[in-house]
Amino acid sequence: MNNAYRTYFKNHRDTHLKEMKELLSIPSISALSANKPDIKRAAEWLVDALQAAGLENVKMMPTEGNPIVYADWLHADSDITALVYGHYDVQPVDPLELWQTPPFEPDIRDEKIYARGATDDKGQVFMHIKAVEALLKTEGKLPVNIKFCIEGEEEVGSPTLEPFVEQHKDLLAADVLVISDTPMLEKGKPAICYGLRGLCAMQIDVKAATGDLHSGIYGGGVANPLHALAAILASMHDETGKVAIEGFYDKVQPLTNEERQAFQDLHYDEEALKKELNVGELYGEAGYSFLERTWSRPTLEINGMYGGFQGEGIKTVLPSEAHAKLSCRLVADQDPQEIQDIIEKHIQEHTPPGVQVNITRMDTGRPFQIPYNHPFIQAAMRAYEKAYEATPVLTRMGGSIPIVEGFGRLLNVPVILMGFGLPGENFHAPNEHFHLENFDKGLLTICEYLKELAQTK
Amino acid sequence: MNNAYRTYFKNHRDTHLKEMKELLSIPSISALSANKPDIKRAAEWLVDALQAAGLENVKMMPTEGNPIVYADWLHADSDITALVYGHYDVQPVDPLELWQTPPFEPDIRDEKIYARGATDDKGQVFMHIKAVEALLKTEGKLPVNIKFCIEGEEEVGSPTLEPFVEQHKDLLAADVLVISDTPMLEKGKPAICYGLRGLCAMQIDVKAATGDLHSGIYGGGVANPLHALAAILASMHDETGKVAIEGFYDKVQPLTNEERQAFQDLHYDEEALKKELNVGELYGEAGYSFLERTWSRPTLEINGMYGGFQGEGIKTVLPSEAHAKLSCRLVADQDPQEIQDIIEKHIQEHTPPGVQVNITRMDTGRPFQIPYNHPFIQAAMRAYEKAYEATPVLTRMGGSIPIVEGFGRLLNVPVILMGFGLPGENFHAPNEHFHLENFDKGLLTICEYLKELAQTK
Repeated sequence: MNNAYRTYFKNHRDTHLKEMKELLSIPSISALSANKPDIKRAAEWLVDALQAAGLENVKMMPTEGNPIVYADWLHADSDITALVYGHYDVQPVDPLELWQTPPFEPDIRDEKIYARGATDDKGQVFMHIKAVEALLKTEGKLPVNIKFCIEGEEEVGSPTLEPFVEQHKDLLAADVLVISDTPMLEKGKPAICYGLRGLCAMQIDVKAATGDLHSGIYGGGVANPLHALAAILASMHDETGKVAIEGFYDKVQPLTNEERQAFQDLHYDEEALKKELNVGELYGEAGYSFLERTWSRPTLEINGMYGGFQGEGIKTVLPSEAHAKLSCRLVADQDPQEIQDIIEKHIQEHTPPGVQVNITRMDTGRPFQIPYNHPFIQAAMRAYEKAYEATPVLTRMGGSIPIVEGFGRLLNVPVILMGFGLPGENFHAPNEHFHLENFDKGLLTICEYLKELAQTK
Repeated sequence: MNNAYRTYFKNHRDTHLKEMKELLSIPSISALSANKPDIKRAAEWLVDALQAAGLENVKMMPTEGNPIVYADWLHADSDITALVYGHYDVQPVDPLELWQTPPFEPDIRDEKIYARGATDDKGQVFMHIKAVEALLKTEGKLPVNIKFCIEGEEEVGSPTLEPFVEQHKDLLAADVLVISDTPMLEKGKPAICYGLRGLCAMQIDVKAATGDLHSGIYGGGVANPLHALAAILASMHDETGKVAIEGFYDKVQPLTNEERQAFQDLHYDEEALKKELNVGELYGEAGYSFLERTWSRPTLEINGMYGGFQGEGIKTVLPSEAHAKLSCRLVADQDPQEIQDIIEKHIQEHTPPGVQVNITRMDTGRPFQIPYNHPFIQAAMRAYEKAYEATPVLTRMGGSIPIVEGFGRLLNVPVILMGFGLPGENFHAPNEHFHLENFDKGLLTICEYLKELAQTK
């Protein structure tokens, strides 16, 4: 292959890196109100960059929170429209003293660019803009129609994105949603993530007597909320590591043999993981490998548990309260509300006498899954193969990005997660960086993908 | 009855109260090093008072901590010797602002004397001195031989008492040990406590991975120490409230029918307790009443449990550690070390895969029990009956006073717990006080008891 855009990227590499450094030097931290002006600056920078790239209808659209940057180019011969989502806000930077170079003074060393936002997600947003620019400058047009939707509140939970999407369904209408915000499997091994776990969280508060009691005078005669809580929590798993709540697995899509084989072919190193975590053995639902457990099986995890005396030594108290926080990771087609319903029922049925239990429902997010043989996934596979000269792998992820599922559902489009970051690039941590190898190959992958999309359907 | 000492008490009541106020005005707080001089002053005050009462060999004996005050009078016709134990140190006084009158400015109102130490235990120590004084002044002798051993570290766990007793077994040798530091059942209902529960405490620390993990990336694939801890703790009780640890009840002395009847005859108001504690039902080992459970049955109580996230909302963390503190209340003839052994074994056998458990043994104290038909108990019953003109009740207590058992065991003597305080007199709390009715009747009870003891054997 020797397409003109390849030459364009080579010739403009220095300019592109200089521009990327400009974007990365804006401290667009969404969690800190002091950085509001920087948020605006970053959005303005993107508006300018999108316009310079040749996109049309470029605008900063207000929301109740930070503005969303929109742009499009809708003159393709193909009637396929790809919507690119990304975010221009970044995580806070503390502890600052652990950064080798300041987080907002981008620095290139060893062919990596170091800065907050380098991989998550300003660097990858920048690549999509430059890929479109290269195609427009060298070919005068794009293979498919393109829309950009770049938000500024992803790192604080995207509170205004869903209402925005609801309100602008026509403007954002597309055939496919492309997001570059998930990691590759490892260096040289691009990955397309076709599943993310969902989430539902709850708090359990157990109460007995009005106040803490002397364990000598009352102990054995009044219910101890810590005992009740331990019994409730212990009842939620059986001894094989399975969740023991009735109906919990009812809607879970079982892994296909093909998927299990594909996971196995990744040769995930469980021994190395044991060493890294310093555990004698991995533990989870019986009958599944580590990847199968964390990518494709739902969990119920106690995230916190507390009550009574926590100081040094002993205090012979019979506490009046006990608390636990728990969250489930869900897989398709589990519904977070339904899971909360059955957990609540289970807790009520397993509450011992003498205590009152209060249950608070917290965050929810649906699981995301797209068939791994979807034509747009297959198109992405071919694009990676051309750019990386390596076969990409199909992966799932144990984490949750609720917006992925929500965005796809609201617009009724398949979501393609094609990220270019590497797992060790310290997103959300000091010394965040991005490998320039994946910057270069990622630009090509995006161009190839737009071309492949035009051939699909 | 119209004994001379009765008249003596009447005639000297004002002097006695004035003297008691003097003793109570010394802030002999053993927990605060700033009060060391006051500790010494209180001990000196007792030395003077014992001498003035007519006791002999009065001395302040050094220990590694606070001095112990000793005195005796060994010229009785009877060959029985009673050893009186008490303590001259007191609890701290904060929160000071909740005291209606300053804790070390004793104030009499409504026939109660308000001061720190009024009931626990300086007031009651004072009574024993004055009872002996009255007998010596009016009768010229005591019915039995008497020894006093008054320590200054009871409120900080009596760290030097056992070594002191070991070292001075001959000096302290006696036929009966009398302690006035437990409450009466209620106003007008004197009680003799013939059993105290013992204690053993432990900490359980559960560890899995070296650090906290992301519950999305690792959840379901790595053991969660909170799950393991909940399972371990839940396994310690069965669903009827019984401790489910093998061998836990093996050495427990069952209640006799006579004891159960005696407890029932107290007509303890469980309904009132439910209201007071604001619980819908009382809960504990099946087949026992509240008094039976707390007075005569052992318990295993989780005093604290903690691990993971405790803040507001949810944090989807898979914690690396979980902790619990537990303590058992033990009854005769359970051995604290043996109980710790079987709990440790139980924990090891019930630890799920993937975690490491560390167990730390903490405080222990043996249960105390004396046969309720012991002749020295019967003598006390008669003494109370004469002084109070009411039948005293035989009780046990759910709390632990390890020194009672230790003292009795080291000297190989029966311990008679005849306290004159009332349950609501705020020992260890602001506005500690002591009812003068029980001061008056207690003085008589002690005199009667010494006389009854002389008739025994």
